[in-house]
Amino acid sequence: MTDFLASLRPEALDAPPSGIVEVWNYGRLREGLIPMWAGEGDLPTPAFVCEAATRSLAAGETFYTWQRGVPELREALARYNARLYGGEFSPDRFFVTASGMQAIQIALTALAGPGDEVILPTPAWPNFAAAVGVRGARVVEAPMSFGNRGWTLDLDRLADAVTPATKAIFMNSPANPTGWTATRDELAAILDLARSKGVWIVADEVYGRFVWDGSPRAPSFHDVAGPDDRVVFVNTFSKNWAMTGWRVGWIEAPPQLGDVIENLIQYSTSGVAVFVQRAATAALDHGEGFLDHQLRRIGESRALLMEALAGTGRARFVPPAGAFYLFFGVEGEDDAGDLALRLVDEAGLGLAPGLAFGRAGAGFLRLCYARGPDSMREASRRLADWLSARPLRA
Amino acid sequence: MTDFLASLRPEALDAPPSGIVEVWNYGRLREGLIPMWAGEGDLPTPAFVCEAATRSLAAGETFYTWQRGVPELREALARYNARLYGGEFSPDRFFVTASGMQAIQIALTALAGPGDEVILPTPAWPNFAAAVGVRGARVVEAPMSFGNRGWTLDLDRLADAVTPATKAIFMNSPANPTGWTATRDELAAILDLARSKGVWIVADEVYGRFVWDGSPRAPSFHDVAGPDDRVVFVNTFSKNWAMTGWRVGWIEAPPQLGDVIENLIQYSTSGVAVFVQRAATAALDHGEGFLDHQLRRIGESRALLMEALAGTGRARFVPPAGAFYLFFGVEGEDDAGDLALRLVDEAGLGLAPGLAFGRAGAGFLRLCYARGPDSMREASRRLADWLSARPLRA
Repeated sequence: MTDFLASLRPEALDAPPSGIVEVWNYGRLREGLIPMWAGEGDLPTPAFVCEAATRSLAAGETFYTWQRGVPELREALARYNARLYGGEFSPDRFFVTASGMQAIQIALTALAGPGDEVILPTPAWPNFAAAVGVRGARVVEAPMSFGNRGWTLDLDRLADAVTPATKAIFMNSPANPTGWTATRDELAAILDLARSKGVWIVADEVYGRFVWDGSPRAPSFHDVAGPDDRVVFVNTFSKNWAMTGWRVGWIEAPPQLGDVIENLIQYSTSGVAVFVQRAATAALDHGEGFLDHQLRRIGESRALLMEALAGTGRARFVPPAGAFYLFFGVEGEDDAGDLALRLVDEAGLGLAPGLAFGRAGAGFLRLCYARGPDSMREASRRLADWLSARPLRA
Repeated sequence: MTDFLASLRPEALDAPPSGIVEVWNYGRLREGLIPMWAGEGDLPTPAFVCEAATRSLAAGETFYTWQRGVPELREALARYNARLYGGEFSPDRFFVTASGMQAIQIALTALAGPGDEVILPTPAWPNFAAAVGVRGARVVEAPMSFGNRGWTLDLDRLADAVTPATKAIFMNSPANPTGWTATRDELAAILDLARSKGVWIVADEVYGRFVWDGSPRAPSFHDVAGPDDRVVFVNTFSKNWAMTGWRVGWIEAPPQLGDVIENLIQYSTSGVAVFVQRAATAALDHGEGFLDHQLRRIGESRALLMEALAGTGRARFVPPAGAFYLFFGVEGEDDAGDLALRLVDEAGLGLAPGLAFGRAGAGFLRLCYARGPDSMREASRRLADWLSARPLRA
């Protein structure tokens, strides 16, 4: 029998399985389970978005297209960003990608390779570190702390992580899984650090519309950075418009990177289907109503969950400012990986174990509360009942 | 002004622009031009394929899905391959990718990196060599020869290209751009070479259904390789079913590579939209009639083109056995890059310059004849007229 794996590249062999997918596969087919392990809600894509794709297909838009994205979508991205952040945006800054994940992959391919380091505040979405590893570069963690104010990022610790090998700092705010949301001052300080060290910022502001203090959006590097700054934004249509399954996202970067990004798209997936781009354009231009609907719905679920969990007296959390996850610990339960499996078996609940988000996440669970209130009420009840029925282990 | 490019990775900066896209962009908007530069036909995707996607969208299949592809599509791939090659195929061998290009990218990521070499018979589709470069590996060309029998591959020359750093041989048969189609004996000899050196074969048989001697398919590594052989097949739905714009393809590999491939998919685009996979499933299960229609149509166009070009007495070519390209030289015209631009301006014809396919392609032009006979008759007339009106340069 041939040992097929022996001759594979170490970067490929070392790409870790996703700790989220592991528990997902464990419980995927359980009858009645409420799945809250993935970063997606329970609403399908709104009809007006699907219909834009359907119309495009019926019109025969099934041929190769622009590697950077169709002009109409790049213009819609410029309009959307101008509405959200103010000022003018050129369509030349935008590049359509086959998912937010691919936006990250392309940005990393441009910025980091063997011998390079990328700084990552943790706990963090595991795919970022894994994608750095696939490029042969090294992730340097800047662990966040959990305390009375919830999760916080120590900027001195971030600065200490910079070495001569550092090529980029990956900043995800609002953050998955912690919900940590940088203030404008924090973003300015991080940008100053990047400027002084001559390193790039990869800004993942995918959850920027999901903030819970009534603001229309979270603080953004758009608020502090200028055209001379080395900032690459990576984003996705998945969250705002319930398009997780579509695999479409975008990069915003200095236009000088345009040819490099176009070539990297060409040699990875060679562009995104036109009919998918028509749907994405519809989402940007006509999607605010749906997003408002989502925010009200998820906000109600968020309140229900927090109240139920607080009532148990056993959950360690501080209500996070952004995103749609609760990253919490359970008193008396140190092995969150085991806990996630028991919650599948004994409570019919699908949560992701904290270790999937790096060592800093050990002992925590991630719960995605982007669901309707009825479903969330039931999930909260199950979780509270399960916690109450199990006394603290001695 | 910040020098944004100075801090980018060399692998990214060195990714070349596509020489095909260059002339395409030059002539993309010319009124009345007949575009034959890209590897796609003039038919939109058949309605039954589009409708499968539309039904899936209407049914709300817009969520995250299996990283390896939905089980139904992997089963359809197993059935399709069993029909085409005989024998049994396990769905475990198949992995759905976001284009044939991504199939190549993922295979290369598993097989080659810095310090490694990949052998490539040339002229060849430029994206393969470019994707090797993005991985930091090195392409070693095995130049083919053009003579009275058309393009031929010297197997001794291929063997000479193997070094201790060789990780894989990329074999594209039927080949883009030359139409060269390996015999079963040639494939067996190449497999023997790979076995004796312990290197992988990456088999790109994307044009395997486009052969012009009446056979249902070209010889395949499926005909000679066994389950212990290090062969990875990369393929796409683009050509057989006119789905170039969909960006969906597949990898067939030993199931032992399954976890590695799943992880590499996870960390590049995280899967393919379910509704796209429903369309791909329909194409495999119900697409033979459309493929027959395409083959008759393109076969007629092929004959028209060859006859018209032979009549000029100035075109150097031998009718190739497979694929849907003519890769030909023009007596008295050595600079095919310049010639391609003049054909845009003076004849309203879009062809790709041979240098886009490597140094071995210098002096040649690639013409994609996957068009209807009416359009091809007009294109052939324009080309013949243009050649007749321009006497040989002294």
